[in-house]
Amino acid sequence: MNRYWSKLAQGLEPYVPGEQPRDRKYIKLNTNENPYGPSPKVLEAIRNATDDSLKLYPDPTCDMLITAAAESYGVGRKQIFAGNGSDEVLAFAFMAFFDPGRTIVFPNITYSFYPVYASLFQLDYVTTPLDSEFNIPSEQLLQNSGGIIIANPNAPTGKALSMSAIRNVLEGNPDTVVIVDEAYIDYGGESVVKLIDQYPNLLVVQTFSKSRSLAGMRIGLAFGDSQLIAALESVKNSFNSYTLDRLAIIAGTAALRDAGYYEGITAKVVATREKFVRDLRSRNFTVADSAANFIFVSHSDVSAEKIFNELRARGILVRYFNKPVINNHLRISIGTDAEMAAVIRALDQIL
Amino acid sequence: MNRYWSKLAQGLEPYVPGEQPRDRKYIKLNTNENPYGPSPKVLEAIRNATDDSLKLYPDPTCDMLITAAAESYGVGRKQIFAGNGSDEVLAFAFMAFFDPGRTIVFPNITYSFYPVYASLFQLDYVTTPLDSEFNIPSEQLLQNSGGIIIANPNAPTGKALSMSAIRNVLEGNPDTVVIVDEAYIDYGGESVVKLIDQYPNLLVVQTFSKSRSLAGMRIGLAFGDSQLIAALESVKNSFNSYTLDRLAIIAGTAALRDAGYYEGITAKVVATREKFVRDLRSRNFTVADSAANFIFVSHSDVSAEKIFNELRARGILVRYFNKPVINNHLRISIGTDAEMAAVIRALDQIL
Repeated sequence: MNRYWSKLAQGLEPYVPGEQPRDRKYIKLNTNENPYGPSPKVLEAIRNATDDSLKLYPDPTCDMLITAAAESYGVGRKQIFAGNGSDEVLAFAFMAFFDPGRTIVFPNITYSFYPVYASLFQLDYVTTPLDSEFNIPSEQLLQNSGGIIIANPNAPTGKALSMSAIRNVLEGNPDTVVIVDEAYIDYGGESVVKLIDQYPNLLVVQTFSKSRSLAGMRIGLAFGDSQLIAALESVKNSFNSYTLDRLAIIAGTAALRDAGYYEGITAKVVATREKFVRDLRSRNFTVADSAANFIFVSHSDVSAEKIFNELRARGILVRYFNKPVINNHLRISIGTDAEMAAVIRALDQIL
Repeated sequence: MNRYWSKLAQGLEPYVPGEQPRDRKYIKLNTNENPYGPSPKVLEAIRNATDDSLKLYPDPTCDMLITAAAESYGVGRKQIFAGNGSDEVLAFAFMAFFDPGRTIVFPNITYSFYPVYASLFQLDYVTTPLDSEFNIPSEQLLQNSGGIIIANPNAPTGKALSMSAIRNVLEGNPDTVVIVDEAYIDYGGESVVKLIDQYPNLLVVQTFSKSRSLAGMRIGLAFGDSQLIAALESVKNSFNSYTLDRLAIIAGTAALRDAGYYEGITAKVVATREKFVRDLRSRNFTVADSAANFIFVSHSDVSAEKIFNELRARGILVRYFNKPVINNHLRISIGTDAEMAAVIRALDQIL
């Protein structure tokens, strides 16, 4: 830091993503990536588009991707926004809907980027505590605040909120936007995209980095009333006209058009998760019910930090958050059956 | 707009990029794209990287790209930042170095995204007028302000500032950051990247969308003192951890490693520009001396708006800015020799 930093920059505490080490080959279960690759049709579409047309700017409206999403989700084209990953979509949403001086609300244990956005955009926030089983007590979110954001399923707990609980939150906050971050929804939660016609204050955010196996391509979507989408467009077009490159637009479109492939790999991840949860519970792990592609666990006898370090030494990366409330838990992404069997073997050595 | 828009969103006047029409095939000379495609080695590198690894997040530090840029430009790795096009880099720079309440300064005729960023980040600004030949009077930029931004060569005029003029601006503003936006530098200006060791307040921004023929892939770089780069990293990591996707990082790296190809196509564009300028001047056009891949012209008898519309009707897109000072000028991107010959034929019909 030096005298050239803005006051804003001086006050930031940036988000720290899960590590992407290159020192050795790891079984990588720390950033909730998909263990299966993208659809072969996606890869083919990217290769076919890799030509001289890359000299031209992308379509700033991402029309092809928006059209495919409208068909896939059964919503209107003007109800969809596309951004560079759900992180960028969320950043734009914080700018478009939340005002400094009006306190926003989110759970104390959730995606740790939310307080970072609040700091970047100089928004006040309060957090509401999870209950003892890591559920979000939605009745605490009924105060009319400056805005609400909920991850559903929540991270890093993996626990889902019911649609009726989300309806209550929407109805309890008629004057402010409620963002529902559905990054992990395809692994077990019930999406509220179908509610956007009923609630003009609902913005649903999804990503292609998890169930669509395209973390490397940075694609996120938002769904909501056309007026909310127009606000996101206005902010984006004041920031960077083209945040999805040509190949990302192509990749996202092809992914939406091969739903069958993705349903197949999602079902595999869910089946692997259920077996892994049983294996852990039989070894005295407490495992929160997960509707995501990761699980949140603690052991009765051995600390999370110790297990984290021991797994790392054995070439297995998981995520450990050294924070109050959750500093005796690990978040473990679900990989292939073989990878999770390797985790179980390593745990049997460690315990 | 509705009651859910933040005050910020309500006040925005977004940037309007050049149109990307799809109703017919145009000779497209309106967004300063490169008429030649990317290096074949770039396309090959993208195709080779289009595999299952797209399921994984990109490297958030863009290490491969930064390393290639450090070698290519002869600067340190900690003196380089990579972003999603120079537009995103500029947006982060406005956040990292400029403070609300401290007035920033830029010329009245320049890249029209600068006032949009100022609005988005709620910064006050003043503009300084160009002289009658569209030069930037750099002595007007010697007040110690809240920050300076200069496009060099300037847009849409194409005129370059000398290195000594930029040195004067840097020395006249020792307490604030001077951003030099070198989007078009490879077409004739003198880059000030080599000054970053001498001036801790200098940030130089470049793009891969012009001379590197990768507008479709969204890659921009900033060069500056490591403390300035650290501020950009801090802002980026508070906004979106990964703004370049895996294929953009690969493409940018491969482009930097094939300098010979790009020198060749840049020389072709410059030769085409010089011939086109001569052809126009012989037809009573006034043409500003251009150090860019576009020219800025007006005609003695026929209005710019009329020429714009007549060219469009003939399938040729150029850029017309309906703004004070420049509303009788056109900005015409330099295409291939054949494309510019077609423009001349069309102009001979119109005039």
